[in-house]
Amino acid sequence: MDEAAKKAVLRLFTYGLYVVTCQHGHRRNAFTANWVTQVSFEPPLVALSVENQAVSLEFIRGAGQFTLCVLESGTRALAGALGRSLRDSPTKLEGVAWRESASGATDNAPAITECLGWLHCTLHSEAAAGDSTLLIGQVVEATLLKVGQPLTMREAGFRHSG
Amino acid sequence: MDEAAKKAVLRLFTYGLYVVTCQHGHRRNAFTANWVTQVSFEPPLVALSVENQAVSLEFIRGAGQFTLCVLESGTRALAGALGRSLRDSPTKLEGVAWRESASGATDNAPAITECLGWLHCTLHSEAAAGDSTLLIGQVVEATLLKVGQPLTMREAGFRHSG
Repeated sequence: MDEAAKKAVLRLFTYGLYVVTCQHGHRRNAFTANWVTQVSFEPPLVALSVENQAVSLEFIRGAGQFTLCVLESGTRALAGALGRSLRDSPTKLEGVAWRESASGATDNAPAITECLGWLHCTLHSEAAAGDSTLLIGQVVEATLLKVGQPLTMREAGFRHSG
Repeated sequence: MDEAAKKAVLRLFTYGLYVVTCQHGHRRNAFTANWVTQVSFEPPLVALSVENQAVSLEFIRGAGQFTLCVLESGTRALAGALGRSLRDSPTKLEGVAWRESASGATDNAPAITECLGWLHCTLHSEAAAGDSTLLIGQVVEATLLKVGQPLTMREAGFRHSG
């Protein structure tokens, strides 16, 4: 395989930028993700790829749920800050504004408020995917906070593919 | 769940536009897709969600492979034409320029040439995802045809989420 071509073509893929929030017991995290897509209309399912060594994988499995927040155009700095791992940047959540979870299905499922809106998802299934795990979530609650344009990888100038 | 909010938030997701090509025996297809993302660096894996009733699902399973072509900005008409199902539009492939497959791992794996480049993928695994099936492909060959900007759902003005 032509490794340079592989990287070049994979870097032509178009992505948005999202923040995934999760909480298990009293431990929570918020991390930036771009390998995200809807995968089904009925039921409404989304897929999210998470590195196998990410601490959030434990939180999401433990809680059986996660929240997908859609970042707004212009919030590149937030995406960058939350893109660091919790292990390497244990203080990265300082200053993050949270919306605490509602009751019922999404108990223990906080979201961040600096975004356009979010989807609370229960963990539907997962699939092994090399160095990562593909989490399939079923959307069970949705909140649109504001009307606006989403932040994209192109706008942010980030690279996470190839 | 607030159905309107669910649709609104899902429609804030950012997507590119791709054409997936596949061939099983003498039957082939090319169809437009946007529910696509890379999911692993090592090995290089991509995920693609395909409707359960799509005839291409049979072709891809039969051949054990598919090709993911990245559409170029400005080729909205091609994306629209190939977005119709082969069952409903049996003549949709007329006029499509093909690159016939090379030998070896990608035998029987054609690509379309009106694109920026493509990734030949072997079918790594699949996961049930509601009304669709998530196909995980391992990139085994890559071709960059030209340097350019990718076509996005935003540019095309298409809607396939929500």
